[in-house]
Amino acid sequence: MAATGDNPSAVFITLEGIEGAGKSTHLEFISGLLEEAGRRVVVTREPGGTPLGETIRESLLDRQNAGTISDDTELLLMFAARAQHLDTVIRPGLAQGISIISDRFTDSSFAYQGGGRGIDMDRIRQLQQWLHADLKPDLTLLLDLPVETGLARAGKRSESDRFESEAVEFFTSVRECYLQLAADEPDRFAVIDADRDVDAIRSDIRTVLSKRGMI
Amino acid sequence: MAATGDNPSAVFITLEGIEGAGKSTHLEFISGLLEEAGRRVVVTREPGGTPLGETIRESLLDRQNAGTISDDTELLLMFAARAQHLDTVIRPGLAQGISIISDRFTDSSFAYQGGGRGIDMDRIRQLQQWLHADLKPDLTLLLDLPVETGLARAGKRSESDRFESEAVEFFTSVRECYLQLAADEPDRFAVIDADRDVDAIRSDIRTVLSKRGMI
Repeated sequence: MAATGDNPSAVFITLEGIEGAGKSTHLEFISGLLEEAGRRVVVTREPGGTPLGETIRESLLDRQNAGTISDDTELLLMFAARAQHLDTVIRPGLAQGISIISDRFTDSSFAYQGGGRGIDMDRIRQLQQWLHADLKPDLTLLLDLPVETGLARAGKRSESDRFESEAVEFFTSVRECYLQLAADEPDRFAVIDADRDVDAIRSDIRTVLSKRGMI
Repeated sequence: MAATGDNPSAVFITLEGIEGAGKSTHLEFISGLLEEAGRRVVVTREPGGTPLGETIRESLLDRQNAGTISDDTELLLMFAARAQHLDTVIRPGLAQGISIISDRFTDSSFAYQGGGRGIDMDRIRQLQQWLHADLKPDLTLLLDLPVETGLARAGKRSESDRFESEAVEFFTSVRECYLQLAADEPDRFAVIDADRDVDAIRSDIRTVLSKRGMI
């Protein structure tokens, strides 16, 4: 299954999950596995991933903006940052044969702005189609764990941002939405039980990548 | 025709035109006419009109971002600023009976990102429908003048921003697009010949407002 030396084609992998699910812990591990398999890899994130996107990210995560950004504004800003990310990082990278691993992508908009904020899922789907009807991740790893566990982990890290300071009910809706998205697209999603130790999670991730022929 | 004392209902007026057309020169004049007619008025602008919108405006007009913001990103940022403007200024204002005069609105997206940048007009229309299918300006005043005249006027004001530093061909396309929009919706648009002295332009504006029963 290892594709080392075969100049394997680029793959587009996204990581999703609630706060504290451990996405950033596993990004470099996944990147390393792909590189061992002979792939060139760029690790990136949303919102952000570009200088302009990081500026937008700052506005979106700034707790000072709590209660002042309307739901439609938040969603359009996420898609604006995503447009820049697609046009300057993801599409050019894939076109050059570089694999992309992104910490969050459009599923986060469904989960947070749809499941969390309550924006109609069809309206989010319209923006998805508007921006990238032609492109979906080859694989989305959903790191799933109970909300309380995730928030406890995230809380230990640092002062919470505008999203992290939302209530437990908000993240419960986000988690449920993620699980529904995974159920709707089982071929694209792999749900990983992230409520275990790091080694067990990594073993599962390695198995998923191997089964998909990515390593 | 004067509605003073009749507590007239709110109207939503937008000003459009290329750089140097004189929009800001006439905003206060129009506001004054409406107030004399007994209306409460808020004067605002796009992109901007809200604290978050002004932050987005800075990114959009910053010449340092020339060549780095993709067309889709620019358009989505315009609509993100517009969402915030609609949700926190325009809709609440109109709901309270306050008339809104905005320096630019969605027609600018058609003219600049469509006519100027070449984004398909149907894609812009999709975002318009997505964000405000239910709301159009009651009146759009298009201050029209030759591109060379406008740019010469704008150039006298200050250092040019990211849009003002575009080439003459860009603004020629913008102007043509504006005139087409006006031809498509003659009931909403009034085209004012802005290549004349201020008094002649103001006289025309007064006549338009009067004929529409707004003053």
